[in-house]
Amino acid sequence: MLLEAIYHRPRLNWCYAYDRETIHLRLRSKKNDLTEVFTYAGDKYAWEQETALIPMKKFVSDEMFDYWECSVKPRFRRLKYAFLLQSGQEQMWMSEDEFTLTRPATPNRLFEYPYINPSDIFTVPEWVKNAIFYQIFPERFANGDPGNDPANVLPWGGQPERNNFFGGDLQGVIDHLDYLSELGISAIYFTPVFTATTNHKYDTEDYTTIDPHFGDVDTMKRLVTACHERGIRVLLDAVFNHSGKTFAPFVDVLEKGEHSLYKDWFHVHTFPLEVIDGVPTYDTFAFEQAMPKLNTGNPEVRDYLLQVAQFWITEVGIDGWRLDVANEVDHKFWREFRNVVKKANPEAYILGEVWNESSSWLQGDQFDAVMNYPFTEAVLDFVVRRTLDAQGFSHAIGKQLARYPQQATEVAFNLLDSHDTPRLLTLCEGNKDKMKLASVFLFTYTGTPCIFYGSEIGLDGGQDPACRKCMQWDPLLQDRDLFMFFQKMIALRKQLPSLRTGSLKFLMADEGGTKLAYERRLGDEIVLVLLNNDSTAQTFEIPLEQTGWMCATGTEDMTLTEDNNTLQVKLSAYGYAILKANK
Amino acid sequence: MLLEAIYHRPRLNWCYAYDRETIHLRLRSKKNDLTEVFTYAGDKYAWEQETALIPMKKFVSDEMFDYWECSVKPRFRRLKYAFLLQSGQEQMWMSEDEFTLTRPATPNRLFEYPYINPSDIFTVPEWVKNAIFYQIFPERFANGDPGNDPANVLPWGGQPERNNFFGGDLQGVIDHLDYLSELGISAIYFTPVFTATTNHKYDTEDYTTIDPHFGDVDTMKRLVTACHERGIRVLLDAVFNHSGKTFAPFVDVLEKGEHSLYKDWFHVHTFPLEVIDGVPTYDTFAFEQAMPKLNTGNPEVRDYLLQVAQFWITEVGIDGWRLDVANEVDHKFWREFRNVVKKANPEAYILGEVWNESSSWLQGDQFDAVMNYPFTEAVLDFVVRRTLDAQGFSHAIGKQLARYPQQATEVAFNLLDSHDTPRLLTLCEGNKDKMKLASVFLFTYTGTPCIFYGSEIGLDGGQDPACRKCMQWDPLLQDRDLFMFFQKMIALRKQLPSLRTGSLKFLMADEGGTKLAYERRLGDEIVLVLLNNDSTAQTFEIPLEQTGWMCATGTEDMTLTEDNNTLQVKLSAYGYAILKANK
Repeated sequence: MLLEAIYHRPRLNWCYAYDRETIHLRLRSKKNDLTEVFTYAGDKYAWEQETALIPMKKFVSDEMFDYWECSVKPRFRRLKYAFLLQSGQEQMWMSEDEFTLTRPATPNRLFEYPYINPSDIFTVPEWVKNAIFYQIFPERFANGDPGNDPANVLPWGGQPERNNFFGGDLQGVIDHLDYLSELGISAIYFTPVFTATTNHKYDTEDYTTIDPHFGDVDTMKRLVTACHERGIRVLLDAVFNHSGKTFAPFVDVLEKGEHSLYKDWFHVHTFPLEVIDGVPTYDTFAFEQAMPKLNTGNPEVRDYLLQVAQFWITEVGIDGWRLDVANEVDHKFWREFRNVVKKANPEAYILGEVWNESSSWLQGDQFDAVMNYPFTEAVLDFVVRRTLDAQGFSHAIGKQLARYPQQATEVAFNLLDSHDTPRLLTLCEGNKDKMKLASVFLFTYTGTPCIFYGSEIGLDGGQDPACRKCMQWDPLLQDRDLFMFFQKMIALRKQLPSLRTGSLKFLMADEGGTKLAYERRLGDEIVLVLLNNDSTAQTFEIPLEQTGWMCATGTEDMTLTEDNNTLQVKLSAYGYAILKANK
Repeated sequence: MLLEAIYHRPRLNWCYAYDRETIHLRLRSKKNDLTEVFTYAGDKYAWEQETALIPMKKFVSDEMFDYWECSVKPRFRRLKYAFLLQSGQEQMWMSEDEFTLTRPATPNRLFEYPYINPSDIFTVPEWVKNAIFYQIFPERFANGDPGNDPANVLPWGGQPERNNFFGGDLQGVIDHLDYLSELGISAIYFTPVFTATTNHKYDTEDYTTIDPHFGDVDTMKRLVTACHERGIRVLLDAVFNHSGKTFAPFVDVLEKGEHSLYKDWFHVHTFPLEVIDGVPTYDTFAFEQAMPKLNTGNPEVRDYLLQVAQFWITEVGIDGWRLDVANEVDHKFWREFRNVVKKANPEAYILGEVWNESSSWLQGDQFDAVMNYPFTEAVLDFVVRRTLDAQGFSHAIGKQLARYPQQATEVAFNLLDSHDTPRLLTLCEGNKDKMKLASVFLFTYTGTPCIFYGSEIGLDGGQDPACRKCMQWDPLLQDRDLFMFFQKMIALRKQLPSLRTGSLKFLMADEGGTKLAYERRLGDEIVLVLLNNDSTAQTFEIPLEQTGWMCATGTEDMTLTEDNNTLQVKLSAYGYAILKANK
């Protein structure tokens, strides 16, 4: 038993309340080291009467560790606990500070979850678990009102450059809601729409108005109403880490320096504001002098931004916020932000932009989810870069599942491309089968999938600005096969709840392998997903307890046979199959 | 290199801002496995220009692990980092998700501390680092006003029982402030003083009045003023987890059941309130029906308690709060509590009662410190129970130091006994030398030491209620030798800053050993503490770089010789010595 590998601590992903009655416990051990693990738990004020040994199950693994999990419903909402570890005949007890060969005699030095306080429970919006997101970059989606085009507008469909404009606007989105409904979309995440100077609008000039080239507050209200009528929710982008250089308080500081009433709205090191050897004398996003970092620790700034957050929810009816550069803003601000937002709309979705491990924000007091780029990277490493084999991919996913409370996983914001990355089709070098393969994983995995506008009809493009092409509205120039694929995957996800919130188990993920098979299970619904990440046809042989499998969908030339409790499925190069067990 | 043993994650004790410029990084490895560790760090927006390799030092160890630490001052207040691990010739790089043999080429998948936001920095009150605390249980300290005695008062000095009264009060404390000043006390922590029915007052009836048997709000104001004039700070006990059964809102629920306006002030499962088979139908402290748990998630309750917290600071001038059963109250409440308290008095000390590992409360958003019972247990395991040898004790201390941000350690509330434990003298079975030995560690260790009233003059007693004897005021019956020992240790601690905030290094802590030697160092002040935890005289031989050691204090019959860069110190049974290097 490798004791140095064993890890547990109270809270975070290791011990948390899932709901008002249930505590989830997890423990890490060296891979393939422990054979059985039990939680030894009871009530500290009624220790003798209430203790129990609860078996834990190995719920995921990564390349170095196994992760064990169990659920406990403590009768008095309090939990004192230790672990009983078994490796064959070897046995060890683990309490807060030590490993012992014998069972701890008293609860004193055990781990503790002192009491399930309802206000500490990480509560996420239910609708997100079932949502299909679509990300819109408004300047490039559709031009519905040529009357509000910028003076220097270019013809729709031209080459996107860092500083050019094509006239997309909110009316354009309203005009194409039928298209989104046809695809099956149930939520839109808009990159910024507030008044700003750039085409991406990440340099806010005014947080309370819609950019005049996009429309006005009334247009946004009409858009939100029209979306809600179709069952589509709306997320806006809150750029609270920094403002733009034309934001009035910053203009005032630029002009008046130390004498500005707004001098503490930013992080100014020396006056006057200037740039010396490429480094501004005030903090900015990166070294971008036109994006001065806001001092969210200043109560005036905090109150101003919280009013903004509330305004768009209560006055315009939006369903949540995506938070730009969220990791560089203080946690204290985000905690107050959550209070304000959830009070205005308890079902609002709070989605932070954090590219790394995000535990610090996903404990229930700040965000509901983050832009799940580690998910993106794992899928790309497997399908596109091929730096991960099937086993490595299952490990990367296992690591991510172990990392967060289950609630966070259930509303994770999963994406394969965005305005900040190359398009998936471009990464796949135009290989649509690979693109579909990656997308099958997206749509059959826990968390809400998001499609970057146009990827569903074959829009391509490399890193920003190339990934921000104008949407193609000519049906003859759209890839309708791809569109129908996305439509089908969305419909399937809606039809099969196990794909959204079922358990996940890898059935085939071999070292050096290209074949990936996994099961999703919820109640008596069992779904099997097979992915052939190989440039040649492959046959999957999977031993099964269950017989009677139907193909829910899959690549055309697949073959399926069942015998001797073995499922044989042949898939073409980069082929996939989604099978459903007969009940 | 045992990779499974290596641990780091951003935030918590592993990566945190120490001040506005400095980030502390820590990493754990298998004991005696790594020979060198470096942090590889830079700015993610200027990666090529700003990267550096920063050596980490092994700052503590426990029985299984070494803990490495370094400080970084990132020029742009942002940090992307990995680690370079060395075990002899073997080398490995550690980034967020993997170990690699080669240096990570880009910052993308490294660890991150995104930006030092001032409002996220854990800021603790400076005065606590230098304070000497004294805990007073008011009913048993001194009776200064017989006019307010309870009807059933017993003669001072009788046997303490669970439900008897001896007439102690606030005037009694005022009358004896000279005594506390003579001892060297600079802060008092009072167990509850608000109106309640019991002698311990943990069953609050009214959070806004002083118990009439103790005095009134004016007496408390006079007490605080008198303390402040002597440079003594005052902490009160906030019993916010539960109220008493005579608390008006609870009386209302008892009477009106579901129709009470206060029904949501508590956690009621079924009405009417009753006790079935020993279990109340409402949540309580433990199963104590007379201590109904308050619903601190209810905004009305929260606002009420926060007003109470503010009132005693702004109106009465107290310097902080000790929080009873703090771990069973929600984190959200404590975060708002911190905001309110620190706004009322930025130098207020927030001290939670948590007996276990307390990371969840010690990140800067909730408490400044907890009652450091794990410290108590380690000292008792070493000196009293003898379940830890010198090495085991150094490991227990090392583990505690590794566990929290440095700020938390600097204002830790260290104690050897309290109203909730047997008296130290009783645990030592009357052996004063052992009691002194344990206390020497208390006064030469980082964190604020607290003396439980009367322990300094030889008060004894087992578990509650026996530990709550009346204070002995007859000088002839006080142990004056013990008093002078405490006076001396306090004076020494005040005189030598290294004992308060210096670094700590164990110089002798052998397996099976009873001899403990450690160094405290701050700037050019070096102090050596030697403890002989043995029933026979022992000679310490310590190789030293430095010569010229003076005895600052120690047991009488110690001998000290220096030669060949070795310090020889002979200490009698349970003897100690505190030596100071000549500069």
